[in-house]
Amino acid sequence: MEFRTATRSDVPAVLQLLADDDISRERGFGDAPVAEDVDAAIWAAFEEIDADPNNELVVADDGGEVVATCQLTFTPGLSRLGARRMTIEAVRVRVDRRGSGLGSDFMAYALNRARERGCRIAQLTTDKRRDDAHRFYERLGFVASHEGMKLVL
Amino acid sequence: MEFRTATRSDVPAVLQLLADDDISRERGFGDAPVAEDVDAAIWAAFEEIDADPNNELVVADDGGEVVATCQLTFTPGLSRLGARRMTIEAVRVRVDRRGSGLGSDFMAYALNRARERGCRIAQLTTDKRRDDAHRFYERLGFVASHEGMKLVL
Repeated sequence: MEFRTATRSDVPAVLQLLADDDISRERGFGDAPVAEDVDAAIWAAFEEIDADPNNELVVADDGGEVVATCQLTFTPGLSRLGARRMTIEAVRVRVDRRGSGLGSDFMAYALNRARERGCRIAQLTTDKRRDDAHRFYERLGFVASHEGMKLVL
Repeated sequence: MEFRTATRSDVPAVLQLLADDDISRERGFGDAPVAEDVDAAIWAAFEEIDADPNNELVVADDGGEVVATCQLTFTPGLSRLGARRMTIEAVRVRVDRRGSGLGSDFMAYALNRARERGCRIAQLTTDKRRDDAHRFYERLGFVASHEGMKLVL
């Protein structure tokens, strides 16, 4: 199992992982396009992430198969004595690989990236309905100290 | 009242606003340095934010006085059909200016920046103890749909 930055050819598999999720389906994003139908906006987003040193799209690659993904964003800030923080978004582990320890290993990789980048805090938000995810992150040491508030524009 | 990107000379006033907060004090960040004692890490963070098109440190300037601040981060992503999102961090309104409508106007400015940058979602986390803040953001249309989880590294 290799954890690494995603390349352009990983994008369809990442979209598949993002779509294969009950809450994404409920939001109307439950269908992943096949490679040749990936929208221009998605390619543009990938290119922007790929070019930005403060964004990393990460995958878990099991012998050529993408089985997990997340996006890491590193943000400088003046709070907490100028501490850099890492925000983790869009975490998905393929359904048939859950409960295998892959998720924990993958997050350990992400938190190690945070340390390498000099972050002093890691943060994420998870939908309140994802009880399993809350327990998972609490086991990793995350504390649900904040309300995660969203506004669709 | 002018809402604008912060300059280097605003940094001490921004630090003062960040420090003047019960929860920041509890975290051990309740003292703001005077201008000549601002730490190198904070200047480095400011310079990095200033140079990064995906980060904006914003202030409310009332005739030369900084009376509110927040940081905006614009993040490209593959989720939600390649939607860009804006994350709002480190929001502070000076104690004597709360309840005056300044906070709402300031957030309206921030949400307008999100629209100008093509974001389809705005998000923030707020400490669960900040009941007033939750009501404030809910009035602006934010929904507390997520747990905000943090891990200090």
